[in-house]
Amino acid sequence: MPITVAIQGTHGSYSDAATHRLWPDATLLPRHEPLDVAVAVRDGSADAGVLPVENALVGALPNVLDLLYEQFADGALTLTHEMLLPIHHTLAAPPGATRDGIMRVFSHPVALSQCRRFLERELAYVEVVSAWDTAGSAELVAQTGDRSWAAIASPDAARRLGLTVLAEGIADQPSNQTRFLAFRRATDAAAPAARAKTSIVVQLGDRPGALARCLAAFGTRGVNLTALHSRPEPTTPWAYRFFLDLEGAAADPGVAAALDEVRGHARRVLVLGSYGASPAP
Amino acid sequence: MPITVAIQGTHGSYSDAATHRLWPDATLLPRHEPLDVAVAVRDGSADAGVLPVENALVGALPNVLDLLYEQFADGALTLTHEMLLPIHHTLAAPPGATRDGIMRVFSHPVALSQCRRFLERELAYVEVVSAWDTAGSAELVAQTGDRSWAAIASPDAARRLGLTVLAEGIADQPSNQTRFLAFRRATDAAAPAARAKTSIVVQLGDRPGALARCLAAFGTRGVNLTALHSRPEPTTPWAYRFFLDLEGAAADPGVAAALDEVRGHARRVLVLGSYGASPAP
Repeated sequence: MPITVAIQGTHGSYSDAATHRLWPDATLLPRHEPLDVAVAVRDGSADAGVLPVENALVGALPNVLDLLYEQFADGALTLTHEMLLPIHHTLAAPPGATRDGIMRVFSHPVALSQCRRFLERELAYVEVVSAWDTAGSAELVAQTGDRSWAAIASPDAARRLGLTVLAEGIADQPSNQTRFLAFRRATDAAAPAARAKTSIVVQLGDRPGALARCLAAFGTRGVNLTALHSRPEPTTPWAYRFFLDLEGAAADPGVAAALDEVRGHARRVLVLGSYGASPAP
Repeated sequence: MPITVAIQGTHGSYSDAATHRLWPDATLLPRHEPLDVAVAVRDGSADAGVLPVENALVGALPNVLDLLYEQFADGALTLTHEMLLPIHHTLAAPPGATRDGIMRVFSHPVALSQCRRFLERELAYVEVVSAWDTAGSAELVAQTGDRSWAAIASPDAARRLGLTVLAEGIADQPSNQTRFLAFRRATDAAAPAARAKTSIVVQLGDRPGALARCLAAFGTRGVNLTALHSRPEPTTPWAYRFFLDLEGAAADPGVAAALDEVRGHARRVLVLGSYGASPAP
């Protein structure tokens, strides 16, 4: 039976593409918000969830990091895969549209950020409208058929909906990539693949130097950190929790020893999961 | 002569409030984007600039961090003050409006994020529109007079524009604060005040453990880090630069020694400035 995967967005979205790279025969369960994706996996409506966590230009998606912390805290969910997807944005509009005639551009806020310079340079007087999904924006533009409306979406979404591509490769950097993480219920997850990575959240106390000691616990054991993001502790102004990605599985001896040491410096260490690292796209 | 201060946004914005706490008789120079604020200070149109860098709920404002890096890299600008401003959001609409009749809500994306739960719970079917400024959104709503439109803005902006406040204290956490930084041309800046902080950007090479060694350079000298944010290096996917805030001025002996050591581990260390720390609001 093909796997059912909840994503934020709809068919033709980048999350769709990332999901089908991982599981070519997956059945998609489109959801509106990242929270809905986690809920669908928790309640069994979906076997797995796939969410974008970080873009190489825009940076980490803070709402997804916060969601991982909240939804993984009880141990019900665990990360299982990482996927790096190359991102190619197009400006797509109904057939007959011209670039000069565009008055409104719709897309997901992250896609809009990725194309900020293009929008400022080429569409400076156009109304930019944030929508919940790139492919959904393309759908909206296709449905209304208004030739003064355009969407920023993938070439795939444009083709699928019969839209005209007015501009290609409009992201600020050509080598743009988005990193997706897949997760399942912890009871369903298999052991991580050989080229493993682990994502954790560390909540430190108030002791000065605690973060330095945490990072040193990994460094002295040769455990490489691949990412570090801070997010506010919402109930304590100007306190932070740290999201760390490291090479190796949580059960690897060096990683396990480092995690033990970090638990001594931290108020809490939450392991989001160990998973197979994505090859470069 | 009163100081002229460039801000993003307009009269009645939170940046206006932060600026007038620092300089009660300041003349405001309203600008559309953070980049325009930096340019106004560089070219002498303004004596100083004030920008929000971080909110206690939403986290760091990535576009402002990126702007500081780009605009401070040549040493022309330097941070001079920090200001913590309590944030109280209201839902404001033209006189005669009722909460049930609201169809569209306008505000800055960060203010919308801060009120996410309120919007989801109380205004679930309302169209949410991102605008460039909270006070500008209130102005738009006041000018059109459409009773189905509302803005999320400060109580001050609502009062100033004669809008009706439909809901108060609508941020997800009551104790919300935003941190602002003021900057000037480096040639105009005075020495930092006694309770000093310093903001730096560290760009590491590819060596594993370099971040841990950098943080340890401060920790072993008793220099306390108050914030750490990562931002992508836009030209190298999945490489990061780190924004660090630390207690003490760059010229303090301990801080200076730590910075010297960090320069040995890093490809580049950019000092954004040392400035008087804000008292708690």
